[in-house]
Amino acid sequence: MLEDIPLITITAMKWVPPFAAGSVRDHRGRWILNEVGWAYQVRLVDAPTLASAEYRTLQPFGQVPIMEEDGRPTLFESGAIVLDVATRSGKLLPSDPNQRAETIMWVIAALNSIEPFLMNLAEVEFFMSDETEKSLRRPAVLAAAKKRLGELQDALGGRQWLVGDSFTVGGLMMSSVLKIASSLKVLEDFPALVAYQARCFERPAYRKAIDDQCATIARHRMEDMRYEEA
Amino acid sequence: MLEDIPLITITAMKWVPPFAAGSVRDHRGRWILNEVGWAYQVRLVDAPTLASAEYRTLQPFGQVPIMEEDGRPTLFESGAIVLDVATRSGKLLPSDPNQRAETIMWVIAALNSIEPFLMNLAEVEFFMSDETEKSLRRPAVLAAAKKRLGELQDALGGRQWLVGDSFTVGGLMMSSVLKIASSLKVLEDFPALVAYQARCFERPAYRKAIDDQCATIARHRMEDMRYEEA
Repeated sequence: MLEDIPLITITAMKWVPPFAAGSVRDHRGRWILNEVGWAYQVRLVDAPTLASAEYRTLQPFGQVPIMEEDGRPTLFESGAIVLDVATRSGKLLPSDPNQRAETIMWVIAALNSIEPFLMNLAEVEFFMSDETEKSLRRPAVLAAAKKRLGELQDALGGRQWLVGDSFTVGGLMMSSVLKIASSLKVLEDFPALVAYQARCFERPAYRKAIDDQCATIARHRMEDMRYEEA
Repeated sequence: MLEDIPLITITAMKWVPPFAAGSVRDHRGRWILNEVGWAYQVRLVDAPTLASAEYRTLQPFGQVPIMEEDGRPTLFESGAIVLDVATRSGKLLPSDPNQRAETIMWVIAALNSIEPFLMNLAEVEFFMSDETEKSLRRPAVLAAAKKRLGELQDALGGRQWLVGDSFTVGGLMMSSVLKIASSLKVLEDFPALVAYQARCFERPAYRKAIDDQCATIARHRMEDMRYEEA
C-alpha cells in the first residue's frame, strides 16, 4: 500500500562508540519529525557509506543526518532540517514575525555561538591523544566553553524559554547542543541551563528520538560499520 | 525630518587590529542591508561597551553586529540578521520553496560546517602564544580546515553558485566565512573557491560594506577603544 511508504528518509549512524549513543546529530532530525508527526523512515549508514562518492553528492562533509524526500532537495545540516520541517509544518516556530525572527536567531546562536566552543572542549577530552597538547589546551577551551555557557544562562535569566512562553525549535536546537556540555560534565555548573535542558527533554518526541537512536546502536557492533545494510 | 532618521541600526567595532579590518562580522549586516537598499545607521562600539551589562542584554556574548530596529526585537548572530533582512525584503532568498530551503541550508553550512574549522586554524595562527602548543596543534587543524574546503569545492563542482543560477544569501554567508581562509592563505589551494568568492565579492554592496568598515577602523586607534562614542 503506497500510503504506508514514508516519503521522508533520515540517515542515521548504524553504530557509534557507547559514549556517543544518544548524541549523534540524527536525533535532531528524528526529534523535529516526531514533534510535527510526520512519518519517516531511517536509512542506516556506516563509515564506508559516509565516505562514498554517492553519499558525498548528497552530503559534502560525509555526515548524518540528511533528509531525503520525494519532490524536495536532499537537505543536510541538522539546523536546516529542523528549520525546514518547522517552517513547512507551522509547528515550533512562532507565527508572530518578531518571535519567529528571535527563534531562528537562537537556532543559529546554538550552532554558531555555543556548539563550536563545546566541540573544542569535546575534542580535548574525547579525541586528543597527545597528553602534552591536551594539558596545554584544556584550560583555555574549558574557560571559553564555560564563559559561553554562563552568558547563555544570563540571557535565559529567570525565564522558562529563550523566546516567548513555549518550547520552539530554538529550544530544540539549544538543548541538543547542550548535550555536549552535559557529557563533558560542565553543564552541571549552570543550574538554570540544566533545568532548561530538562524542560526541553520532557518532550515525548525527544525521548522517542533518543530511544530509537540508542536502540539502533545497541543492535549493532563496531564490526557492523563495515557493511552498508542494517 | 523624521523620514531622514534611519530605523535600523547596526553595531560595528570602532577599532580592531589592522589584520582584522574588513573581516569583522558587522560587514555581514552592512552587506545584506546594502544589497536590499534599506537605510541604516552604524553605532560604533568599543571593548567596554561590549562588556557592559546594557549591551549584554542585547547581545549575550558581547559581540558585533546586533541589528536594532523600531518595533522589532534586537537581533544578534550575523546569520540571523542576514536571513531576517533577506526574508522580509524578499531579496537574495529564492521564492521557490526548494531553492529557498537549500539557500538556508548553505547559510547554516557556512556557519556550522565551515566557519568553526577555519576559526580553529585562525586561533592557532593569530591567537595562540605558546609555541609548543602551536606546533602540536597546527597540523591537525590545518588538515581539518583543508578537508572541509576541499569538500566544499567538490560540492560546488563546476557550478557558478551553490544554489540555482544567481547570488543568494548562501553565497553572501559562505564567501564571508571564506575570508578567514583567505587571510590564513589556505583558500588559494582551492581555485574554484577563490573564483567563487571573487564572484560574490564583485557585488557593489559587498565593496561598500568593506570600505565603510575599513574607513571607520582607519579613523580610530587602539586607544579609542576605551571611549564609547566615535
